[in-house]
Amino acid sequence: MHTPRKTVTSIGIIGIIGFGAFGRLMARHLQPHFQLRVFDPDRPAQFDDAGKGLVPAEIPEIGACDLVILAVPVGAVPSALAALSPHLRAGAVVLDVGSVKIGPALAMQAGLPEHVEIVGTHPLFGPQSARHGIRGLKIAICPIRGRSAGRIAAFLRGVLGLNVILTTPDAHDREVALVQGLTHLIAKILVQMEPLPRRMTTASFDLLMQATEMVRHDAPGVFLAIERANPHARTVRDRFFTLAEEMRAHLDGNQHQAPSEAKAEALLAD
Amino acid sequence: MHTPRKTVTSIGIIGIIGFGAFGRLMARHLQPHFQLRVFDPDRPAQFDDAGKGLVPAEIPEIGACDLVILAVPVGAVPSALAALSPHLRAGAVVLDVGSVKIGPALAMQAGLPEHVEIVGTHPLFGPQSARHGIRGLKIAICPIRGRSAGRIAAFLRGVLGLNVILTTPDAHDREVALVQGLTHLIAKILVQMEPLPRRMTTASFDLLMQATEMVRHDAPGVFLAIERANPHARTVRDRFFTLAEEMRAHLDGNQHQAPSEAKAEALLAD
Repeated sequence: MHTPRKTVTSIGIIGIIGFGAFGRLMARHLQPHFQLRVFDPDRPAQFDDAGKGLVPAEIPEIGACDLVILAVPVGAVPSALAALSPHLRAGAVVLDVGSVKIGPALAMQAGLPEHVEIVGTHPLFGPQSARHGIRGLKIAICPIRGRSAGRIAAFLRGVLGLNVILTTPDAHDREVALVQGLTHLIAKILVQMEPLPRRMTTASFDLLMQATEMVRHDAPGVFLAIERANPHARTVRDRFFTLAEEMRAHLDGNQHQAPSEAKAEALLAD
Repeated sequence: MHTPRKTVTSIGIIGIIGFGAFGRLMARHLQPHFQLRVFDPDRPAQFDDAGKGLVPAEIPEIGACDLVILAVPVGAVPSALAALSPHLRAGAVVLDVGSVKIGPALAMQAGLPEHVEIVGTHPLFGPQSARHGIRGLKIAICPIRGRSAGRIAAFLRGVLGLNVILTTPDAHDREVALVQGLTHLIAKILVQMEPLPRRMTTASFDLLMQATEMVRHDAPGVFLAIERANPHARTVRDRFFTLAEEMRAHLDGNQHQAPSEAKAEALLAD
């Protein structure tokens, strides 16, 4: 299908689909620069306290938007696309913010009409790391269809001060499988070991606890998206678990005890 | 055996046994307050560059020291004690700085004459975390024999500005088995997974990498001391590895794929 594309010269109205923690964070930073429309049938009550001045909108109003941001969980992208598609105007840009990129890129390419441009993004931060502002924080951008990615990157870099990393869905998912895969895996294990010491700690353990603290309150869907929806995640965790097993075998076998250690164990056995 | 103890009213001369990375760090911070004697037959060359102004001494000179600090690896404590013991004067204080406390405390009680006081310490920092100074850093102190621990704690707190935590060898080893056991275990696994991303990273992953960076250059003996010489370490790592295996089973089993995920895997299989 070859449809003529209208060139979007400026973005005036942005629609945000999904108004969870991340949707609200974006709204706060985009509001000074754009007119916003927020769509989230599941959470109409949220608009009052956090979305003051935002317009809760009905899906058909999506036709007024120059840019539509999907801020729904990765698993909910296909159904959101189905609901949006008939209403998008020619030349509109659809952008997602999920923590994996291959799956949503394929879903957007398959589910959006040809007259719509597509950009994949992954802001490498959340409400926790952005609590003192977003300047200097990282965002990955994958151009998928059309030429709007460059203009969006320029805005994010020049106006919001983000550190923009241009990449592809596969390169992104490969790298992030390590970054988020390892962080969340380790954090999940550490949280299960609580109570952990807070007093007799080292600086490196404090950093480990800070890392854990940053992700432990993430929605359960985030961990599953990272582990299940990222096709490179399994290779990473297989390697992590295999190395852990090798380490266990190494430490458990070959137990030559120092004399002081044998005495210490004797004391504990008393 | 009941020997009368001379009360040490002031510490003038401190002997440091072992002049590795930690011995040198201590020397730098103690030098403004005490006369130092450094004993390390293995590293005479080190005195020239790092120990400027320090006096390389022979073991018999230990008799002049009011306080003797053992800064040797945990495994070398018993042989160091055997060499020192005949030369220690009555009322002298012997203090160790190892990352485990049960074993060295037993070794010092068994190996040092009754007329010597004993204090166990574990500075919860190293050359890496102390590179911007030691003020505010933590040190665990275990009184073992005699009453000098309180006076030493007062100096460390009042003069050096350390955060002093009074504890017992068993309480220390129990808590530190988690703190250092987990940090070093995780760091060892992550180092084996290098090259790890440095570009498309999250704040929590950056913290994880900082934690790893702080311990990855530790002498191999440190990891073994933590895992082998701490009698509580095995329980901690058993729990960590068991939780890791449960997590692996949980993530590998029960693989309900979302449609977008199945597509992504199909793409990768091409």
